[in-house]
Amino acid sequence: MTNPALTHRVSPADPKVKTIPPLTDPDAVRIIALGGVEEVGKNMTIVETADDILIFDAGFQFVSSESDAPGVNYILPNTQYLEENKDKIRGLIVTHGHLDHIGGIPFLIERIGNPPIYTRYLTSLMILKRQEEFPHLPKVNMNVVEIGQKINVGNTPVKFFPVTHSIPDSMGISVETKHGNIVISGDLKLDHDDGEPSKVEKDTWGTLGKDKNLLLIGDSTNAERDGFSIPEVRVHTNIEKIIRDVRGRLIIGTFASQFERMIRIIEIAEKLGKKVVLEGRSIKTNLEIAEHAGMLKVSKGTIIPIQEIEDHPSDKILVLATGAQGEEFAALMRIATMRHKFITLNDRDTIMLSSSVIPGNELSVQKLKDNLYRRGVHIIHYRASDVHSTGHGNSGELVWIREQVNPTFLMPAYGYHSMIRCHAYANIEAGFPKENVILADNGMVIDIKNGKDLNILKDKVPCEQLMVDGFTVGAKQEVVIRDRQSLAEDGMFVIIATVNTKTGQLRKSPDIISRGFVYLRENQQLLSEARVLIKKTVEKSTTRSHPIDLDFVKDEITDVVSGFLMQKTHKTPMVIPVLIGI
Amino acid sequence: MTNPALTHRVSPADPKVKTIPPLTDPDAVRIIALGGVEEVGKNMTIVETADDILIFDAGFQFVSSESDAPGVNYILPNTQYLEENKDKIRGLIVTHGHLDHIGGIPFLIERIGNPPIYTRYLTSLMILKRQEEFPHLPKVNMNVVEIGQKINVGNTPVKFFPVTHSIPDSMGISVETKHGNIVISGDLKLDHDDGEPSKVEKDTWGTLGKDKNLLLIGDSTNAERDGFSIPEVRVHTNIEKIIRDVRGRLIIGTFASQFERMIRIIEIAEKLGKKVVLEGRSIKTNLEIAEHAGMLKVSKGTIIPIQEIEDHPSDKILVLATGAQGEEFAALMRIATMRHKFITLNDRDTIMLSSSVIPGNELSVQKLKDNLYRRGVHIIHYRASDVHSTGHGNSGELVWIREQVNPTFLMPAYGYHSMIRCHAYANIEAGFPKENVILADNGMVIDIKNGKDLNILKDKVPCEQLMVDGFTVGAKQEVVIRDRQSLAEDGMFVIIATVNTKTGQLRKSPDIISRGFVYLRENQQLLSEARVLIKKTVEKSTTRSHPIDLDFVKDEITDVVSGFLMQKTHKTPMVIPVLIGI
Repeated sequence: MTNPALTHRVSPADPKVKTIPPLTDPDAVRIIALGGVEEVGKNMTIVETADDILIFDAGFQFVSSESDAPGVNYILPNTQYLEENKDKIRGLIVTHGHLDHIGGIPFLIERIGNPPIYTRYLTSLMILKRQEEFPHLPKVNMNVVEIGQKINVGNTPVKFFPVTHSIPDSMGISVETKHGNIVISGDLKLDHDDGEPSKVEKDTWGTLGKDKNLLLIGDSTNAERDGFSIPEVRVHTNIEKIIRDVRGRLIIGTFASQFERMIRIIEIAEKLGKKVVLEGRSIKTNLEIAEHAGMLKVSKGTIIPIQEIEDHPSDKILVLATGAQGEEFAALMRIATMRHKFITLNDRDTIMLSSSVIPGNELSVQKLKDNLYRRGVHIIHYRASDVHSTGHGNSGELVWIREQVNPTFLMPAYGYHSMIRCHAYANIEAGFPKENVILADNGMVIDIKNGKDLNILKDKVPCEQLMVDGFTVGAKQEVVIRDRQSLAEDGMFVIIATVNTKTGQLRKSPDIISRGFVYLRENQQLLSEARVLIKKTVEKSTTRSHPIDLDFVKDEITDVVSGFLMQKTHKTPMVIPVLIGI
Repeated sequence: MTNPALTHRVSPADPKVKTIPPLTDPDAVRIIALGGVEEVGKNMTIVETADDILIFDAGFQFVSSESDAPGVNYILPNTQYLEENKDKIRGLIVTHGHLDHIGGIPFLIERIGNPPIYTRYLTSLMILKRQEEFPHLPKVNMNVVEIGQKINVGNTPVKFFPVTHSIPDSMGISVETKHGNIVISGDLKLDHDDGEPSKVEKDTWGTLGKDKNLLLIGDSTNAERDGFSIPEVRVHTNIEKIIRDVRGRLIIGTFASQFERMIRIIEIAEKLGKKVVLEGRSIKTNLEIAEHAGMLKVSKGTIIPIQEIEDHPSDKILVLATGAQGEEFAALMRIATMRHKFITLNDRDTIMLSSSVIPGNELSVQKLKDNLYRRGVHIIHYRASDVHSTGHGNSGELVWIREQVNPTFLMPAYGYHSMIRCHAYANIEAGFPKENVILADNGMVIDIKNGKDLNILKDKVPCEQLMVDGFTVGAKQEVVIRDRQSLAEDGMFVIIATVNTKTGQLRKSPDIISRGFVYLRENQQLLSEARVLIKKTVEKSTTRSHPIDLDFVKDEITDVVSGFLMQKTHKTPMVIPVLIGI
């Protein structure tokens, strides 16, 4: 498989866009979210002092059918400010290994001058694994850091603390600046028992709270939900009970990014003497990484190849499969639609969908469910029982964290604006001063001086999103996207006519090439009428002009034919006349 | 506005599709769901005896960005079986006025021979209002029926009973056949108090249960949810409290199809001395119909034109607006994005989103919410407080209804297959015999003989969905849809070359017309290289053939250029060579 970024071409920074000079004031610290505060995805945050720029995460955003960007592969944060200040960049610090935090690295790391990367072990493996798909890129400068460690990145001391998320080695970072620390949460929730945070959480956050904290930049993804989220341990307990009690095979559909849960499922299966089959490339890859990192300790023979599935009693079989979002070619959909080589469902099988539905995937998940129900299998769904929990804390958790950290300023991050607002409102209700909440937009430049004076610059740094579209990485090409949308709705209608430039006569009946408009076989009459109309239009519009103005003729054809097709079909295909003068 | 169906062209029934003869056995009754049992939408069910065919509802299905049908307006049930048995059709009976039950009428009524329509008053007004948009259609034969009335449709006695749904005049139908009644629920929920159905419900369903009921065809839309749904009366109580307590203006976004709620909101507003502004064409139209039907009784001066919004104190203003699904040009989005002529939001305003999110609309609703939150308004959302309830009963209600009706057979309808299964499972768990549950698919022919013998025919009637695509109403044109999808992803690349058919030389450098592929201005180099490549390919592939085989040359160009573009851009535009021999 060729990879887009093997040779991806990057359009240069836009010289016309007004540039903001880098920070020089030694008593100020600057925060910019280049992405991640107007969406779920493409997280990238900058902390800048007079000496250093530190970057936190470099994610991408997935494109769904609802995104209004047909044909685009991924959306990236805009790095123009970083490109202009390359010399000041001291490092890219990565909180955890999910794609909304690491996915942009292969596309962006060269643009920003290949700074050293600092992250924990599993995350480093995830990043390096991805870089393998882009062999033409220079080697990254990877530095594995440990929890509790304090290092200097440039002249800036940073320390790392553990956070609870759905992937191991997730961390937050505390950045020491002259007038207080900047605490970056990364994605997180709390490990808790009925709203009472665990000892580990209390220790971690309590310790952090002893520092002088200037600003907390915190996850907002689940801020619209009240209280505390379901703790992952309850999910594990439920899943363990199901694995124990189930008769027949158990097939679990989950995200490959749910490392913790996949590891736990395999451990439970092993404990209960079951065999585990892994179906789907991303699950296999991620579990290999987990094993390599020493996070999955599994006896030989517990994970079996799919070919051996029939060698064991069905009660002893557990399948971990990709495709719980209804992806058409993923393992679960192939199983559901009887296109799987080794797994044919029967009514003794149980399917557990251990994942929520990502907005935009509702109809494909519905299709998956319908197909599964048709097989008569028993289905356990995350809505009916707690077999899935989010990796992001609800507003109750977010308020508790802010109270522990006790920062002067709070900047809700990682989420759509509505989530950021709800994160803010929850804290304001809990007594946090409204005027110390920073509601950031992508590209907004936030300077804090002397640890107290908030100055939000009038201008933003360039923040138009970058798009990965095949090998092209660059600003959204409105015209290309608009054409794709128009072609998707009504197709195209290309007219090729050879015109005698002396007489204005057509050499022969014009050719018409149409795709995506109407079913041509059933519309021969329409095409004949269009040809007659084109001929007439050409002849009419050439009689009046000498020499013949082909551009004028083209415009006439476009108008007349578009109107005709609209009237006949109520569709507006893209009409493109090509006139060849001879 | 021209309407697609003014002159819509209908492709004829497919003569190749195997046809099932009509029912002739006087001891049998036949049920066919032409639509609505594999989706939410396009509901259309047939009850056939030896004498008569009765049709229940004729809805359409909306197309969303997730539907894989770009450019298509609506999806319709396939009516070929009805077209072939027109003479036996005695009537179209319509349960209620929502588009998934009436939307197909203008497109289908002529095809099935303009049978008389039987429905209640409000529904009749909704249907007639829609017909006005299709003035070229013959007048429909409309018959308004009353609750409790028993009439003969053909030789078949039917009676009508009231059901609770989000639009007034919703009804169910009991069809008397030789061996028992067929009870068709329509869309419904129960009016209840904490799981205790109201007296009206008990009376209605209790009376029905006294008949000998052969089959219940019942709504499944919310069967995946346990227990009882939130009663609408609780929603009204909550909304009344909000309307009373709110400071500043209150803007309520809801579905125009929520007649009951809109009427109730206006009544409450009037009681509290508030003025109501209606924003959005569908809300205005539907409330006009409700007023015309005598269902909305409102004093003069309560509903005010938007131009007068500033003439009243803001505490006295309530706006009912369309667009709660985030539709780009609807009132609520224009208000949220400051593009509304008369309403500029400020932080004293309250917005209530009194509707759920229809699957497929998640991202547009997110965009709406983000824009509203940016205005600093107070937002009340259906997730946080009970300001919305569904019109469809949960599984607890469905089981209660089935117990009251006490039918021999149960056929869950109106929903995706997963919903139909959950409806079935809930009843089986409650003791209903599994073998008497009919899991229908669209087009499945279900014959019940002597009131006990279930015979599901091996073949289905034609059930491929019909699509409204501009003026075309017909079977899905796979090739057209596929081309649209392909054009949406990668665009097109048309090559026009004039070839000397004697020498095989190009007359000049070929023309290239490309749309939706890459940004041409930034890719001149690519185009130049492509032109050189095309020239070479033409010359190479013409040297070997005499006379020159232009089709062969075209194939060569397509292959070579597609490969070249893929390699350079990682995109696969539709490459179309046009060769003009001179």
